[in-house]
Amino acid sequence: MKNKISILVLIFALLMNISCNKKATSDDLVSQNSKGSHPKLILTAQGVKNIRAQLGSIPIFDNSLQAVKEEIDAEIEAGIEVPIPKDYSGGYTHSRHKRNWFVLQKAGLLYQILDDEKYAKYVKDMLMQYEELYKTLPLHPKTRSYARGKLFWQCLNDSNWLVYVSQAYDCIYNYLTEEERNKLETNLFRPFADHISIDSPQFYQRVHNHSTWGNAAVGMIGLVMDDEELINRALYGIKDLNLDTKAKDDDGGFLNKDGKAGFLANIEEPFSPDGYYNEGPYYQRYAMYPFLVFAEGLHNVKPELKIFEYKEGVLLKSINALLNLSDADGDFFPLNDGQKGMSYYNSALVTAVDVSYHFGEQDPGLLSIAKEQNQVLLDDSGLAVALGIKNGEAKPFTKKSINLSDGPEGKQGGVGILRNEDMELVFKYAAQGSSHGHYDKLSYSFYEKGEEVIQDYGLARFVNIEQKGGGNYLKENKTWAKQTIAHNTVTQNETSHFTGKYDIGSLHHSELHYFSSDNEHVQIVSAKESNAYPGTTMLRTMAVIKDADFEKPYMLDIMKVTSNKINQYDFPYYYFGQIIQTNFEYKTSEILKPLGNKNGYQHLFVEGLADAKSESSKFSWMNNNKFYTLTTLTNSNDELLFTRIGANDPQFNLRRDPALILRTNNSKNRTFVSVIEAHGSYSPVSESAVNSNSSLKDLKIILDTMDYTAVAITNLNDNTKLLITANTNASKEAKHTIKINGKNYEWSGSYYFE
Amino acid sequence: MKNKISILVLIFALLMNISCNKKATSDDLVSQNSKGSHPKLILTAQGVKNIRAQLGSIPIFDNSLQAVKEEIDAEIEAGIEVPIPKDYSGGYTHSRHKRNWFVLQKAGLLYQILDDEKYAKYVKDMLMQYEELYKTLPLHPKTRSYARGKLFWQCLNDSNWLVYVSQAYDCIYNYLTEEERNKLETNLFRPFADHISIDSPQFYQRVHNHSTWGNAAVGMIGLVMDDEELINRALYGIKDLNLDTKAKDDDGGFLNKDGKAGFLANIEEPFSPDGYYNEGPYYQRYAMYPFLVFAEGLHNVKPELKIFEYKEGVLLKSINALLNLSDADGDFFPLNDGQKGMSYYNSALVTAVDVSYHFGEQDPGLLSIAKEQNQVLLDDSGLAVALGIKNGEAKPFTKKSINLSDGPEGKQGGVGILRNEDMELVFKYAAQGSSHGHYDKLSYSFYEKGEEVIQDYGLARFVNIEQKGGGNYLKENKTWAKQTIAHNTVTQNETSHFTGKYDIGSLHHSELHYFSSDNEHVQIVSAKESNAYPGTTMLRTMAVIKDADFEKPYMLDIMKVTSNKINQYDFPYYYFGQIIQTNFEYKTSEILKPLGNKNGYQHLFVEGLADAKSESSKFSWMNNNKFYTLTTLTNSNDELLFTRIGANDPQFNLRRDPALILRTNNSKNRTFVSVIEAHGSYSPVSESAVNSNSSLKDLKIILDTMDYTAVAITNLNDNTKLLITANTNASKEAKHTIKINGKNYEWSGSYYFE
Repeated sequence: MKNKISILVLIFALLMNISCNKKATSDDLVSQNSKGSHPKLILTAQGVKNIRAQLGSIPIFDNSLQAVKEEIDAEIEAGIEVPIPKDYSGGYTHSRHKRNWFVLQKAGLLYQILDDEKYAKYVKDMLMQYEELYKTLPLHPKTRSYARGKLFWQCLNDSNWLVYVSQAYDCIYNYLTEEERNKLETNLFRPFADHISIDSPQFYQRVHNHSTWGNAAVGMIGLVMDDEELINRALYGIKDLNLDTKAKDDDGGFLNKDGKAGFLANIEEPFSPDGYYNEGPYYQRYAMYPFLVFAEGLHNVKPELKIFEYKEGVLLKSINALLNLSDADGDFFPLNDGQKGMSYYNSALVTAVDVSYHFGEQDPGLLSIAKEQNQVLLDDSGLAVALGIKNGEAKPFTKKSINLSDGPEGKQGGVGILRNEDMELVFKYAAQGSSHGHYDKLSYSFYEKGEEVIQDYGLARFVNIEQKGGGNYLKENKTWAKQTIAHNTVTQNETSHFTGKYDIGSLHHSELHYFSSDNEHVQIVSAKESNAYPGTTMLRTMAVIKDADFEKPYMLDIMKVTSNKINQYDFPYYYFGQIIQTNFEYKTSEILKPLGNKNGYQHLFVEGLADAKSESSKFSWMNNNKFYTLTTLTNSNDELLFTRIGANDPQFNLRRDPALILRTNNSKNRTFVSVIEAHGSYSPVSESAVNSNSSLKDLKIILDTMDYTAVAITNLNDNTKLLITANTNASKEAKHTIKINGKNYEWSGSYYFE
Repeated sequence: MKNKISILVLIFALLMNISCNKKATSDDLVSQNSKGSHPKLILTAQGVKNIRAQLGSIPIFDNSLQAVKEEIDAEIEAGIEVPIPKDYSGGYTHSRHKRNWFVLQKAGLLYQILDDEKYAKYVKDMLMQYEELYKTLPLHPKTRSYARGKLFWQCLNDSNWLVYVSQAYDCIYNYLTEEERNKLETNLFRPFADHISIDSPQFYQRVHNHSTWGNAAVGMIGLVMDDEELINRALYGIKDLNLDTKAKDDDGGFLNKDGKAGFLANIEEPFSPDGYYNEGPYYQRYAMYPFLVFAEGLHNVKPELKIFEYKEGVLLKSINALLNLSDADGDFFPLNDGQKGMSYYNSALVTAVDVSYHFGEQDPGLLSIAKEQNQVLLDDSGLAVALGIKNGEAKPFTKKSINLSDGPEGKQGGVGILRNEDMELVFKYAAQGSSHGHYDKLSYSFYEKGEEVIQDYGLARFVNIEQKGGGNYLKENKTWAKQTIAHNTVTQNETSHFTGKYDIGSLHHSELHYFSSDNEHVQIVSAKESNAYPGTTMLRTMAVIKDADFEKPYMLDIMKVTSNKINQYDFPYYYFGQIIQTNFEYKTSEILKPLGNKNGYQHLFVEGLADAKSESSKFSWMNNNKFYTLTTLTNSNDELLFTRIGANDPQFNLRRDPALILRTNNSKNRTFVSVIEAHGSYSPVSESAVNSNSSLKDLKIILDTMDYTAVAITNLNDNTKLLITANTNASKEAKHTIKINGKNYEWSGSYYFE
């Protein structure tokens, strides 16, 4: 009986698969989406038929539709507002035009799905008002952008508008008369597309998330208007245009260093073969939407381009990478300029998940994320997801340790994520990360169940909160957030990596030494940085180790610094919460002074000072009712500084977060070895503290040579574990034999642990 | 049809009521609980029968039983440990003996309910080990307490032990031989009871939560042992003992100022007729358990005492008061010494809710809290609750605005809680609050959906976290947490109320001026303090007002200070989060220095300074993705200080929380008028800021005399509301006629709002 059912299920699955593949190859769609047919961008004529046929029986789609309908009905009720542009982000006219682009797109979809003319009329009426307005508009009155828009203060937002509004236009295309279409295209869409491209080459003609939006905007309206010239301008950039390769944008990024431009170049360059986006997950999320909706449109209208197979399918791979760059709560790791709290609940990720499911391999894990998102796109891909969920195909999306290479060919370092039970470590050994990169070579952040244990500061900006610098980057982003001392890595001689210079940082990247997640008890990654400080090499090996003698997996960190001269090294731990205990004496400051006067040091107040212990220093803290202990090897010449962010912050733009900084003077070579344990808990309800003490009794380097570093970790039960990491030949195949304290160790591979 | 059902429901309800009343009057129980019968404290012989009959059909009880069974089975498996006493709170021997008392009590219940001898044997074996140990014990080796115990460093914990263990003894009483009972009573229970009472009168013979535990401990073992002398010692204190009325305990409280003692005095004195406990909710929660379990025992064994009717039923009223002293999440307001996070999920509140339901009037609101608690007591009252829930009788427990008087006769001020939609304001105008009181006359805290908007600092202590001062009160509790400047009220001339002296503070209390919650739009309370600063009177009127022109109810605060001399007034706002905007210029400090050198000022760093605006100063901040704006009337001589807690804190015992302090120099009379608006929200996922600006356009005093203060509040729509508060004759019946700016206002009652 069971077998019979299984066979039936198999047959059904095969049939489904065929039908899915059929859909995905879009043969049907091509025939229908001849150049004249509409809609064709994210909805197709056949898709609309399918959706209408299923309506009422696909809960997540029906609910998403209902929510959008209620939202748009209320907007229609409230009436159209198309104000004269005036404000920066967060201001009224900005917010209104931004709202309008969403409203137009959604109203267009409603027209197609519900076949109710009131939505088409609403879209038409608003578009006509935009047509009226746009032809009168000079450049936007606010002057802060390197590329001013007309509706918005920056071309970027104008492009956002067009990416959405071209979808609305597509949906009501057949509803309009030819005369109406001519009017809109002549006075609104074409000049609009020209302004963000030909008139703004510094914005459009480059490889950057900004230009991705620009390319997609031009391309999508081109697809709707069936305008090959615009489509080509989108795909390949503005023809025969060469820009100054030295010019820079607002953020300090080169405008166009190597002359590459257009949508395809924007896929080619920033994505590694693993799908890692060079600016990091926060900007990948932002760029994802135009990448994917334009790709959808290209897939439907120009299937011969095989856009989803471009660069070995990197667009879909990048979605998987992006989902893996989130913590247990779905929040993206704030690498580079990243605002905390951005997560896969963002609408761009609804697009990403649905598109990835529909145009990819129908990964059932994506369905569970779609369920958490609790909404789907109102298009062909949203329908596919809704049907998958309805048919009970969802499975958990399991995030494991993963190593993501950086660079167009995957050869410019990367990001390693170590996951072990509830602990997550994010280790960054990537390239500069374009203009949004930070000077944070070999830095890391550490999480427990989605809560930050050791934080990455993220960006210094209140996105879209107008009162805080117009919602734009604050100057502390540069003076603090990007600086090395703001990160959990080594700062040499109070100077940031690459002396904080983008031009230099952009030339270099760290190198993967090894990554290994085969042993479920030892998740480990190792990488090397040789350029951040000329003459100094940093080899950092980080592991998250599960050992039965410790309550939770602990972090082991071996940072081997080798230099050709004597330096000062500062090594911070950006913890959160209250200090519980130290094994060293400290003195708190009566008056708080900044730690330095530049390179981020000017933003740190010194709250306390200590001489480190001669063997290892221990520091315990409590945050969110959990205990943590850092144990780090020190000698009696080392200093420990208790710092707090917030000095020289005249607008209170920075969070007052603490750090413990290990400082060593007069060091040439130094191997920093640290363990961070997460342990125990406190309940303010029962007022009981459980396992509030470290389980680590002793931490020791027992060998440290050019080729090997060996660390012994002894717990309170007097069990000792040994980790030996190969510092030079660390390939999987390498065979090692070494003698430590008279004992022979033989193994093959990158590291030894026992 | 509907009427018929209603009648049936009514009849059913009456029947239920009769049967419940029958249970509550406990006629059955009395007959069974003759002096010799066991169990009789919180379980009765009849109760055990009833429970056994219902087992398996009362889900919340069954689940609670299962959880306890698993816990105790694991303990039995692990074996008995009765270590020689050595540690302070949080240390091993402390934690183990504490664990044992819970385990013994639960094992006793399991024996009764499951009728499985293994539990009785386990209790017996452990009690015998205690008997062995106890007779050898000197005073506990740790010397910090004013009343050292034997098992624990303080008698208080010894008393905790006995309160629980007497229940265990009660449960296995009949299981033991007379010889075994004699051994235990002679060598363990009687000397134990004597040590915490006769040998420790400074602990036992007073009115304080400590002695409540002591009284209950002595009384409960007395009930089990059927020892009238112990029972009387519990109820009335140690006979013929007079203590030094000037002596003080560890916390600075008088040991026994007026000679009162015993359980009844401990009910009489600290509870007001409304059930407010003078030390505040945190300590009420702590004292609640011995109050109620001893009361249960007395109810069962000595029904003639009518303990639940004592002082007009104050014990049950106090449970209602306590539940009302919690925020939307069930966390108690941290008035006086209160640790944040303590909530009605604490096990003492499971007792309180179940007892209140069973012995009170079967309030169906209590059932909904019991459901949230997700457990019940394994006794007669827990059964009653479980049956109530099973029968679907639970209704929401709705918290409304409430005024709770303080003082044995309700004449020593009180606490007013204003609730309006999601906003809650807690206004404290109580008496000193015994040794756990703070110098915080007319202070308040403000909440939105259970999150602190304007915080009360609470205590400076990490309860039971041994690494932080043994888990005991830290010295910063006195130097910071109790001081006036740590609270949201006025500090005059940088000196705390009553010059921070407990002896003086204890003589006085604030006076209610009026409280009114009749108008659902205007929840308002007003109180007066004349003794905190001799020669100065503070009349504070606080309202939470719902006005359609504001998104959420706003707080209006009128603090009228009248003095016979010129003073400096400091008025802090302990907000949380990031500063978003001010309407005044400020200068941040390059170097942070303490604001003063005593009375709490030594703990505040000055982060910034500003001259206030000439009419009103505005300050907006964001916390937990919500916006808040303070608008406060100022003149150009006022200063605004940005401060942060943490100066002179050599052990990092204090949280680094910010405040804005309004400082006015050379003021004699000053009426501070402020509005705090909660508005809007920010989503880091959609990156949109909604309603991030204040809706308040103008705030003005338009009249301020001895008799009246009138404030005009104008919003952005130019609608003006007027609040006139009567400063003198504010009775409900009072009739008022005044002319302001040529317009006549006539009303009766405490205030006018329109």
